[in-house]
Amino acid sequence: MVAESDPPTRRIPEATVARLPLYHRVLVDLAARGDTTISSDQLAIGSGVNAAKVRKDLSYLGTYGTRGVGYSADALIHEIGRELGLTQEWPVLVVGAGNLGQALVGYRGFGARGYEIVAIVDSDPAKRGLEVGGLVIEAVDEVERIVADRRIAIGVIATPADVAQEVADRLVSAGVGAILNFAPVVVSVPPTVSLRKVDLATELQILSFHQIHKHGTPA
Amino acid sequence: MVAESDPPTRRIPEATVARLPLYHRVLVDLAARGDTTISSDQLAIGSGVNAAKVRKDLSYLGTYGTRGVGYSADALIHEIGRELGLTQEWPVLVVGAGNLGQALVGYRGFGARGYEIVAIVDSDPAKRGLEVGGLVIEAVDEVERIVADRRIAIGVIATPADVAQEVADRLVSAGVGAILNFAPVVVSVPPTVSLRKVDLATELQILSFHQIHKHGTPA
Repeated sequence: MVAESDPPTRRIPEATVARLPLYHRVLVDLAARGDTTISSDQLAIGSGVNAAKVRKDLSYLGTYGTRGVGYSADALIHEIGRELGLTQEWPVLVVGAGNLGQALVGYRGFGARGYEIVAIVDSDPAKRGLEVGGLVIEAVDEVERIVADRRIAIGVIATPADVAQEVADRLVSAGVGAILNFAPVVVSVPPTVSLRKVDLATELQILSFHQIHKHGTPA
Repeated sequence: MVAESDPPTRRIPEATVARLPLYHRVLVDLAARGDTTISSDQLAIGSGVNAAKVRKDLSYLGTYGTRGVGYSADALIHEIGRELGLTQEWPVLVVGAGNLGQALVGYRGFGARGYEIVAIVDSDPAKRGLEVGGLVIEAVDEVERIVADRRIAIGVIATPADVAQEVADRLVSAGVGAILNFAPVVVSVPPTVSLRKVDLATELQILSFHQIHKHGTPA
């Protein structure tokens, strides 16, 4: 017997996981304008995913709509939110207070979804004590103390590539269980740590691949 | 008969396309330290992808290494670079000069790979004429002229969500063929236009999904 608060043990495909945040946002928007039941077609249009795939994705959650009626908006928002951990708080530490780190601190909408950036550190003594987005930049030497005191769940690496591995190691040994890496380099973490990578240049290269293969030239 | 400069007509899976930029970067790094032949194991270690998948991915390019020797570094760099369009210039326009837009302009490494941000525009008159990262912020009304004059290949949307569709429409009608959207909303473009989306909150939600399913709690 499994308690309601336990994490589900079903295996959800990675591609489905990547679409759940999108469905969640579309559902919240539709519910906010008063819709109480939502069809897979509405969800498909709002998310840009085809309706058959939407239904398949939601079936992994054990959620099946009623034929001709759709899904209960509230129930589905709750179910997806629980899968994504949105019912909990995920305090975030940003390492690196350059342009990108400062942009992340200034980015709206994280806190509203449970991901509040609670600290930012930098190795440059000249930056310490400066304020960005309501936070005071702290020393990178404080990482261990910050992680423990503020129960950091996610560390964000917004440093140059050449120090990213060192920062990842430090976050891991301080006890951070999830890392989002923006540095343009592959970092290694133990299998117990969750790691995601955002590489802006990679996104541009994927775009140019498609342009080349569609048209043969940039513009 | 197909000329060498024509785009290949083979169908490369999307997941393979997404790994090509990573292989390219690893190869360039290995070549820079003097390696002239590179094994799939080296490429696997550097990219964090298993060696069998590396070989399968490269086979889509029609590239097969020599057993026991590996791949020619130069030939493979050239081949992947050609697929990704890295042998051409892709001038980039950023729309939105908030924290994120300014971070993108300040982000190093784009220009070196052929993606030079050549203009940034904002709808706020108070921002016009200010300089960020060597560029002067221009008016959003100038988009059509900028796209035509500077042969913009990629438009980056770094605006709030509520104006992102309007910006996308404007970029498309100005003739931009590829769009990278950072606004946390789904935008629609005609099928002839390439579109990629980077949603930072989505990345955090995918991380928290994995944490929940591994450990049940944030920290």
